[in-house]
Amino acid sequence: MTRYKLILEYDGGDFVGWQRQTNGRSVQAAIEDAVFAFCGERVTVQGAGRTDSGVHAVGQAAHVDLARDAQPDTVMAALNQHLKPAPVAVLSCQAMDDDFHARFSATARHYVYRIVNRRAPLTVDRGRAWRVGKPLDAAAMHAAAQVLVGHHDFSSFRAAECQAKSPIKTLDRLGVSRQGDRITVETSARSFLHHQVRAMVGTLKLVGEGKWDTADVTAALVARDRSAAGPNAPAEGLYLTRVDYD
Amino acid sequence: MTRYKLILEYDGGDFVGWQRQTNGRSVQAAIEDAVFAFCGERVTVQGAGRTDSGVHAVGQAAHVDLARDAQPDTVMAALNQHLKPAPVAVLSCQAMDDDFHARFSATARHYVYRIVNRRAPLTVDRGRAWRVGKPLDAAAMHAAAQVLVGHHDFSSFRAAECQAKSPIKTLDRLGVSRQGDRITVETSARSFLHHQVRAMVGTLKLVGEGKWDTADVTAALVARDRSAAGPNAPAEGLYLTRVDYD
Repeated sequence: MTRYKLILEYDGGDFVGWQRQTNGRSVQAAIEDAVFAFCGERVTVQGAGRTDSGVHAVGQAAHVDLARDAQPDTVMAALNQHLKPAPVAVLSCQAMDDDFHARFSATARHYVYRIVNRRAPLTVDRGRAWRVGKPLDAAAMHAAAQVLVGHHDFSSFRAAECQAKSPIKTLDRLGVSRQGDRITVETSARSFLHHQVRAMVGTLKLVGEGKWDTADVTAALVARDRSAAGPNAPAEGLYLTRVDYD
Repeated sequence: MTRYKLILEYDGGDFVGWQRQTNGRSVQAAIEDAVFAFCGERVTVQGAGRTDSGVHAVGQAAHVDLARDAQPDTVMAALNQHLKPAPVAVLSCQAMDDDFHARFSATARHYVYRIVNRRAPLTVDRGRAWRVGKPLDAAAMHAAAQVLVGHHDFSSFRAAECQAKSPIKTLDRLGVSRQGDRITVETSARSFLHHQVRAMVGTLKLVGEGKWDTADVTAALVARDRSAAGPNAPAEGLYLTRVDYD
């Protein structure tokens, strides 16, 4: 048995999310089916981040155990072959020690949220960013975001169905920057609550529009109540970009 | 009669190209139909660059004359409304003097060609970049590209059906740079021959793979024969990014 670490990229718009579900095609099932087509083994692929429907990944990490002894490059090429035409790709494959676990060994997860701040509809970026028509003040968004960085109870930014044991998390980074009409939100933490990034971005958008200020974000955080923060930003702007391990 | 300058963005994958044709939907016709839906006028939209099928634009320029006297912002909003759901958007609209011509007044055209240099298939960038599996030497590509910069007879990089009067053009810029597995080719000129950018990129790819060197590119240029240069790079990696006017 060999444990392989996979780095994955996918277009989340085509899937019900990472996790296998009864209501549609998941990224996890697509990969498990490709594994079966390759070596006839029915396995469970463990992912580092359980991305929602519509959320993209350019650096998701996962692991899979195979009885078939194959070179990592062979596994990667075979999975990519069998994944076609689904918009999922294995960017790299590496043999690991048995104690490596894509989800539990992860020390940091990094996400990027892309906003296009303009009146015109999206064309080449359709399904790949959130278009916001009202002018946003990215500097104000960045300043307010710093309130959320650190060790906090993030109940106000947590979906009702979140399965995490505790709402207390340490947010390492939440940066907002603008380049032309593109606003990028970059965030890092050991782990995030369900919908946490989208709830934070939806809240910062209120600041960008001038409806909220930094004090409102602080009030939302201390309320520990989902209804106190802004609505979720749409899934299609969110990208899981990297997962770190020791 | 008012002349409006439009800055346009579109996903070229959905169209037979910029120019109206009998074999499918063109960007030009999509905009002309939106104009008709807005004000009932049957007009011809003049574009600065006649992009091929599959070629994208993030800064195409065009002009249109309307009898209806409307604020540029109104024209932009109405066209975007009527263009839906086609992946074409009007990014800006401006009233111009009658002597402005989107095609003939243009002083420079800028294109970007995007290559993703990796073995894994594309997912979020599918249809938006050229995936090249073999490792490419971007520095060698950039060095060889400088042979093409300047005033030359570009017959070797010109499609048979090109309608330009002369194959002699001045290429102002042809730069190749790499960031991770992304290779970007940026090029600028007052005007380009038909398929010139794709033929230049296809030729530089041979250099990147190590099959050709700078001397081969020089030889291809001086041959003044299309068969002497490399094949066209695929349309889907090409973006018309900006058109300049005095």
